[in-house]
Amino acid sequence: MSTRNIKLTIQYDGTAYHGWQSQRNADTVQQQISESIERLTTRPVRLFGSSRTDAGVHALGQVAHFHIDCPVPTENFRKALNKILPDDIVITDVTEVAPDFDAIKDTRSKRYRYTICTAKVPPVMQVRFCWHRPGTLNAEAMQTAAACLIGRHDFKSFASAADKRQSSVRTILGSSVQGEGPWIYYEVEADGFLYNMVRNIVGTLVEIGRGRWRVERMQKILAARDRTLAGSLAPACGLCLLEIRYDSDDRIEE
Amino acid sequence: MSTRNIKLTIQYDGTAYHGWQSQRNADTVQQQISESIERLTTRPVRLFGSSRTDAGVHALGQVAHFHIDCPVPTENFRKALNKILPDDIVITDVTEVAPDFDAIKDTRSKRYRYTICTAKVPPVMQVRFCWHRPGTLNAEAMQTAAACLIGRHDFKSFASAADKRQSSVRTILGSSVQGEGPWIYYEVEADGFLYNMVRNIVGTLVEIGRGRWRVERMQKILAARDRTLAGSLAPACGLCLLEIRYDSDDRIEE
Repeated sequence: MSTRNIKLTIQYDGTAYHGWQSQRNADTVQQQISESIERLTTRPVRLFGSSRTDAGVHALGQVAHFHIDCPVPTENFRKALNKILPDDIVITDVTEVAPDFDAIKDTRSKRYRYTICTAKVPPVMQVRFCWHRPGTLNAEAMQTAAACLIGRHDFKSFASAADKRQSSVRTILGSSVQGEGPWIYYEVEADGFLYNMVRNIVGTLVEIGRGRWRVERMQKILAARDRTLAGSLAPACGLCLLEIRYDSDDRIEE
Repeated sequence: MSTRNIKLTIQYDGTAYHGWQSQRNADTVQQQISESIERLTTRPVRLFGSSRTDAGVHALGQVAHFHIDCPVPTENFRKALNKILPDDIVITDVTEVAPDFDAIKDTRSKRYRYTICTAKVPPVMQVRFCWHRPGTLNAEAMQTAAACLIGRHDFKSFASAADKRQSSVRTILGSSVQGEGPWIYYEVEADGFLYNMVRNIVGTLVEIGRGRWRVERMQKILAARDRTLAGSLAPACGLCLLEIRYDSDDRIEE
């Protein structure tokens, strides 16, 4: 039979994993899913995930694809994989896509959310999914600073040194902060992100939110293209990959 | 120095624990907190918790008290204990109370919430705190059935056989179901609960919500005082102790 191209939409609580990407001697999300597919289909599988989320980072909308020549009906894949997978990884959608669909290369944009809890005591039911940072933050100042990142810019100031990609120019499509009681949410959508970019932006926003830096400083840090100027890296546990968008999304949904 | 009586308000994610009550060879919430107090004060401590929550049950408002003759200021207790305790147990409040305050005997009422998720796929970020039960439930029918439990009744039909207390008469002060998208919340407040009472009520409400039993059946089950008639026991992970109220609450808050 002919080879099918399968697209997975995936949610995970990243707390227990060393990130998405398979590594020697470390438990990763990619490995858990690949092994589950192999167990189910008894065929070797190469799984390509759109975002290589770091250790401790979560996802509500990771996307991956793999090629396979097994006859399992698409809908059965979801149920069967969820039975095999541990509770902290869930496949929410399985679709058979065009043979040339590539979860990594075809990505049009990615959307992340970062969650901060400013309450005095850690929120025991959300503690895995937020940065617990007691102390008031000025959400309005953070929102003003966040908005000035929108557009096509060189984000070198917000990339960690480990990022070896040639260009640090990206386009941020949306960047906004919302406060709700003790909670601060930062949402950002871009055509791509540099290594640790969201967490470095959040570290900077927090310096502004706590009043140590003025709102205008965000613009200066961005313009400087200097990694030493941004705030410190915010913890992984507050970060969640919400959604990956594709050029083919409209086509698939039709 | 004189002995002080300390009241703790406690939140926990019960997933990793064999319930509240200390047991041989099992990790419990009571044990974790007692040991933390002993480590902090270097004094032996007996901790009395208002609710002996079962294995896997959570709490946002458990209350406990203990007597101690150590000079640590009350506010420092909270911070110091939270540093020692694991991430899934949090002390939210520490108050010095009247010498005769008793977290168990003085309880006026307890309030629980039970959470059901009816979505097709498990909600990865809330999976520890709900019963994932795919399939539509009629929240209105459940609400009508829940409301008829309010008042002073013999709740023998909803007690597990392990309950050895003499009287099974209790007063339910509030009992209501709310639906919000795929989520169903049941909240119940009473002057006391029989063993597994909330989870047995939820098991019964679900039979009504899925349409297998009529709304009127709740009234019949209650009147029958027969343990074999109620629905099956709902899983522990959906249950959360929200609040304990005391006669002394007004006095303390003044």
